[in-house]
Amino acid sequence: MSSIFGDRLKISVFGESHGPAIGVVVDGLPSGIALDFDKIAGEMARRRPDSGPYSTKRKEMDEVEILSGLFNGRTTGTPLSAIIRNKDTISAHYNAMERLARPGHADFSGYVRYKGFNDYRGGGHFSGRLTAPLVFAGAVAKQILEEQQIFIGAHIDSILDIKDIGFDKTNITREQLMALSEMDIPVNDRSCHAQYLEIIDNARKNGDSVGGIIEAAIIGLPAGIGSPIFDNVEAKLSSILFSVPAVKGVEFGEGFSITKMYGSEANDSFYTDGSKIMTRTNNNGGINGGITNGMPVVLRVAIKPTSSISIEQDTVDIKSFENTTIKVHGRHDSCIVPRAVPVVEAACAVAICDLLLSQLGVDTLSEGDW
Amino acid sequence: MSSIFGDRLKISVFGESHGPAIGVVVDGLPSGIALDFDKIAGEMARRRPDSGPYSTKRKEMDEVEILSGLFNGRTTGTPLSAIIRNKDTISAHYNAMERLARPGHADFSGYVRYKGFNDYRGGGHFSGRLTAPLVFAGAVAKQILEEQQIFIGAHIDSILDIKDIGFDKTNITREQLMALSEMDIPVNDRSCHAQYLEIIDNARKNGDSVGGIIEAAIIGLPAGIGSPIFDNVEAKLSSILFSVPAVKGVEFGEGFSITKMYGSEANDSFYTDGSKIMTRTNNNGGINGGITNGMPVVLRVAIKPTSSISIEQDTVDIKSFENTTIKVHGRHDSCIVPRAVPVVEAACAVAICDLLLSQLGVDTLSEGDW
Amino acid sequence: MSSIFGDRLKISVFGESHGPAIGVVVDGLPSGIALDFDKIAGEMARRRPDSGPYSTKRKEMDEVEILSGLFNGRTTGTPLSAIIRNKDTISAHYNAMERLARPGHADFSGYVRYKGFNDYRGGGHFSGRLTAPLVFAGAVAKQILEEQQIFIGAHIDSILDIKDIGFDKTNITREQLMALSEMDIPVNDRSCHAQYLEIIDNARKNGDSVGGIIEAAIIGLPAGIGSPIFDNVEAKLSSILFSVPAVKGVEFGEGFSITKMYGSEANDSFYTDGSKIMTRTNNNGGINGGITNGMPVVLRVAIKPTSSISIEQDTVDIKSFENTTIKVHGRHDSCIVPRAVPVVEAACAVAICDLLLSQLGVDTLSEGDW
Amino acid sequence: MSSIFGDRLKISVFGESHGPAIGVVVDGLPSGIALDFDKIAGEMARRRPDSGPYSTKRKEMDEVEILSGLFNGRTTGTPLSAIIRNKDTISAHYNAMERLARPGHADFSGYVRYKGFNDYRGGGHFSGRLTAPLVFAGAVAKQILEEQQIFIGAHIDSILDIKDIGFDKTNITREQLMALSEMDIPVNDRSCHAQYLEIIDNARKNGDSVGGIIEAAIIGLPAGIGSPIFDNVEAKLSSILFSVPAVKGVEFGEGFSITKMYGSEANDSFYTDGSKIMTRTNNNGGINGGITNGMPVVLRVAIKPTSSISIEQDTVDIKSFENTTIKVHGRHDSCIVPRAVPVVEAACAVAICDLLLSQLGVDTLSEGDW
Repeated sequence: MSSIFGDRLKISVFGESHGPAIGVVVDGLPSGIALDFDKIAGEMARRRPDSGPYSTKRKEMDEVEILSGLFNGRTTGTPLSAIIRNKDTISAHYNAMERLARPGHADFSGYVRYKGFNDYRGGGHFSGRLTAPLVFAGAVAKQILEEQQIFIGAHIDSILDIKDIGFDKTNITREQLMALSEMDIPVNDRSCHAQYLEIIDNARKNGDSVGGIIEAAIIGLPAGIGSPIFDNVEAKLSSILFSVPAVKGVEFGEGFSITKMYGSEANDSFYTDGSKIMTRTNNNGGINGGITNGMPVVLRVAIKPTSSISIEQDTVDIKSFENTTIKVHGRHDSCIVPRAVPVVEAACAVAICDLLLSQLGVDTLSEGDW
Repeated sequence: MSSIFGDRLKISVFGESHGPAIGVVVDGLPSGIALDFDKIAGEMARRRPDSGPYSTKRKEMDEVEILSGLFNGRTTGTPLSAIIRNKDTISAHYNAMERLARPGHADFSGYVRYKGFNDYRGGGHFSGRLTAPLVFAGAVAKQILEEQQIFIGAHIDSILDIKDIGFDKTNITREQLMALSEMDIPVNDRSCHAQYLEIIDNARKNGDSVGGIIEAAIIGLPAGIGSPIFDNVEAKLSSILFSVPAVKGVEFGEGFSITKMYGSEANDSFYTDGSKIMTRTNNNGGINGGITNGMPVVLRVAIKPTSSISIEQDTVDIKSFENTTIKVHGRHDSCIVPRAVPVVEAACAVAICDLLLSQLGVDTLSEGDW
Repeated sequence: MSSIFGDRLKISVFGESHGPAIGVVVDGLPSGIALDFDKIAGEMARRRPDSGPYSTKRKEMDEVEILSGLFNGRTTGTPLSAIIRNKDTISAHYNAMERLARPGHADFSGYVRYKGFNDYRGGGHFSGRLTAPLVFAGAVAKQILEEQQIFIGAHIDSILDIKDIGFDKTNITREQLMALSEMDIPVNDRSCHAQYLEIIDNARKNGDSVGGIIEAAIIGLPAGIGSPIFDNVEAKLSSILFSVPAVKGVEFGEGFSITKMYGSEANDSFYTDGSKIMTRTNNNGGINGGITNGMPVVLRVAIKPTSSISIEQDTVDIKSFENTTIKVHGRHDSCIVPRAVPVVEAACAVAICDLLLSQLGVDTLSEGDW
Repeated sequence: MSSIFGDRLKISVFGESHGPAIGVVVDGLPSGIALDFDKIAGEMARRRPDSGPYSTKRKEMDEVEILSGLFNGRTTGTPLSAIIRNKDTISAHYNAMERLARPGHADFSGYVRYKGFNDYRGGGHFSGRLTAPLVFAGAVAKQILEEQQIFIGAHIDSILDIKDIGFDKTNITREQLMALSEMDIPVNDRSCHAQYLEIIDNARKNGDSVGGIIEAAIIGLPAGIGSPIFDNVEAKLSSILFSVPAVKGVEFGEGFSITKMYGSEANDSFYTDGSKIMTRTNNNGGINGGITNGMPVVLRVAIKPTSSISIEQDTVDIKSFENTTIKVHGRHDSCIVPRAVPVVEAACAVAICDLLLSQLGVDTLSEGDW
């Protein structure tokens, strides 16, 4: 439980922000998959914080050390494990936080859950840093999916009250998704880029923070993936997406907006060109009854504003039970949405890979014959 | 997989709409829990369809037959199983549907998933009827939770474009939730009742349908429940909620709206009266870092408009691959939101009970000493 | 947990000996499998008690009612559930047992586990009667395996101190296994039949009981099934075999006897005829490193003597904590080994089917195309 | 699946013999457990190979690096992960083995399972070296159990045809188990020590190997632990024990020998001293109906002779499908039974800890209050 996700592809994430290392064990992989480390490094780079404001990040794989499950550049089929050493951590910033619960963070709830024994420094096991191993696992899952012609991408649908153009849910191409993955702030409407940056910069100047919505798409998924009742595509995806820090909402297709439609509008009518069955609209986000219908799977994820702000906030000293105030120092993103994009994609990749393995079997997805 | 949910409290749901029976096995229950069958019957009645438009439903337990796990009126601790016979099913309505995929339904995706061998009549295993066993399991879970002073309730936050008053997320009482559970269309603002009915009736007259949003609250949950990374409260709840038919979105606290706030607004600052730590606002819905913080857990669920409508829609004959049209006949709710309320509550009860059992242990929650 | 087994093929067994019904939900089945009910009835009959001592049992399927998961004679792929009503139960025999722990039974340990709330009548959920749903599930699993040319059979290797001829572990045929399945007391050496009956009858006359060893074989399993470290073939099989009442030991190949050999004897050397790799001996029971090597999987299961005997035994009144004695009345087999044979086979079938589904995928094993 | 064990205490083992490192993630631990690293180092030392024949091993903890889950010397409750670097590996020995299947090893079955992509060097993920992380996890589990006054120990019951005195199953003390843990070759009858060494040395001189039987005991377990049907104590223990390399049999209490007894002998009659219910004999090994009865849990594990022998054996070239021969070079134990003792104990500790956590809950077993 707790830090393990998946039924067939199980990922076991471990580590604390200021401990020796963080990492992941990926269990249940097909064997013989040639890993493209440039792509993995690219995904890791997309998630990584950087000094310059959203400058192009250097692709470096060296921070990830693979300990097992890889032989001659291919997956062995046995557990693939990878660790990332923690360094450059300034724990001093967190000394006060042993006692003061930062609003919006898990300091208080985590303290109670672990009866005061958790490593509170930098958020410990709750830290956003723990999404790095998830991105690694997702990068591997993405490569397995790509061999099946399944691709995942995302754009930032909104930051605060500025909104990008959403996906055309019936027509999303691989090229579109790849272009998004190349952008530091992926948007469909390029004019949003500057506006997003401006909002984020303003928030930073005020010691405040902003959040936003990420819209992701999974294309190439065949119809018929997922299982009622509980192992359906929406349940599986939402479960891992709500495990990404700061996520407070998940919706598929038109999501909450579908409740503003009549059934005659909301239903996606079917048609065929004789070879494939499609829907004219895609309000259901490519999923009927929890099972893919062959249209793009489209989902939206709400990312709350970064909890760490330098504005003074009321709080409580957990140990003395006294009311007090806190200003959260340290290096914080005033908006984590851009860095959350590859994390959301990785989470989707892991969940979809798990579902595919369930139905197709690990032998089917492995390379080689016997 | 597929039709089993939970880690410690596992529910295994089975059945098809027009098969001999539907049912559930509830595994992992504490022993010695005295079941109140009037309460169970009450929950079943809330979900049941009825001839009159939202008239008071008769409470009947007799439809549910308990086959195991109960002895002298108390849970034995071994699997509690219950079945509900199917009857009064008019399968003739569904003959055409063997070939015609109803838009919005799982007819097509399910056909592919099961390679044409699924029982398509009445939606089969995908039918909303399968929520009856879930409500039964939820009614049992609710009783276990109530012994821990944990209560669950919900209201209909909106139907189409009419909106009820939301919960005051920092202050929700047991009395309020109980009052809602007595209403056929539970609302905080009584004036919504007539408006909701009117919208629903209009949709029915037009052969169309409407959906809405359910807001649920769980009160009395102590701080410290849930586990990072993947076994957190939001992941667990969303996973089972997305298994309820027609759910297309789940959000916690302010959910998607929190992305419109600055961090300084969104963060729920802590304060204490010296005995308990609380938050002044509850934008995070009682959950920080995936773990309860002792405030009410508040969530919202988007229910799409009923897919079955009698208006003609485009579709495809799955077997001949010809474009055609369909009018869906049979008895259908033009709005399933009222009936979905007890289902959402049941889903929450099962998920929370599962989490509690993980942390407290089945022995702790059982009656009796040894 | 507790009453659910399996990762991909999950069986959820429920019921108590003297409750309304016992049953099983089989989740994760391939779709489109045409079930042969005569074969299922045949397996159920092999397990069933009978008035005459090991007379040919009538094949009756009517006692099993299938509630879901079957449509037009084929599996739908959704949960297959079946129940068997309890009848002909004389609970009066068990009234005294509410307080008196029968030696060898779970009366005491179960009382503590469930804090006195379990249904003690007839052993409740611990009863050997609960193997009937397992045999049903196993009969379904056997049919899936047979389509893959995998066959399971067993003989009674010993009763008390009389021993049958063991399998030639390198050469076991389908015909041999089928012939065994037709025998009321399956033996390789026909002369054992009368000797076994005599020992059993003598035990009965003395109000005593005997046990024995069952040797089972699984043939046709391809090499490469199973996964290190924990999801290996021996772990999976032993786990379900130790869930069969009265089993106290499980060994593979030469098992405990292999400890009496030198490595040079124990190792099964490989050879090939150019098309297939085989081993000259099969001391490892077809399993190397927890993974099948293509040779017959051979295992032995120790079944203890029936705990219920009419000879007076010392025991304790669980409630008053007084030392006393007990004679166990009621209808008991003086040897359950013959009836345990189909149960052991069923357990093997379920476990192997689960492993196959993991590697080949449910889509691969389903009928039909899409 | 595959390399993850447990329901509440999940251990995820990773690594290959000649890869960069091996390790384990232990998920679901109680928080606040002060770890005694001397004890952990002691367990690691018991398993470690050594130059001198069974000389006292130096206790070194430094080989194990803890990466997470530990803060100020106590468990945090989040995943505890540890790695052990591989070094001193002479891969050259294994070059020939890429093609030649060593009899008794998983070279062939693993090759098929992973379609030739597994890391074959030194047995890869199948290597006995992978028991080191298990021993680490077991050492942690042992400490949790010891806080509950539950102790685990073992002796070598036999090597080849020499047999030690078995445990008195009704009366095993902590002192006895501790004394055994101090011995390089733990035996009840000290005269066995020299005989065992002699057999092992003779085998070594002949380039051959021997196996044996380990008898383990778990004392202090309260009655009522375990759950029918499938999550019972015997199923759980056997499942992890069959995951230890070279194990070919597991039995509880009298095990296979119980089939040679009449029921009147085999049944363990109950008696009480007024405060506790006990059994006069313990043929069932402390387990009735899969649930502990409060008596010592006693089990025996068959360890086959080491597969690696320097005597020439027949085998097959996996790639060319030619018959050939092999002599296995490299440093091999001619008997791994002494080193398997702490592994068997560790496996028992992990399984029992998992069961305890299920029933008592992680909060109950954690230190501290909230």
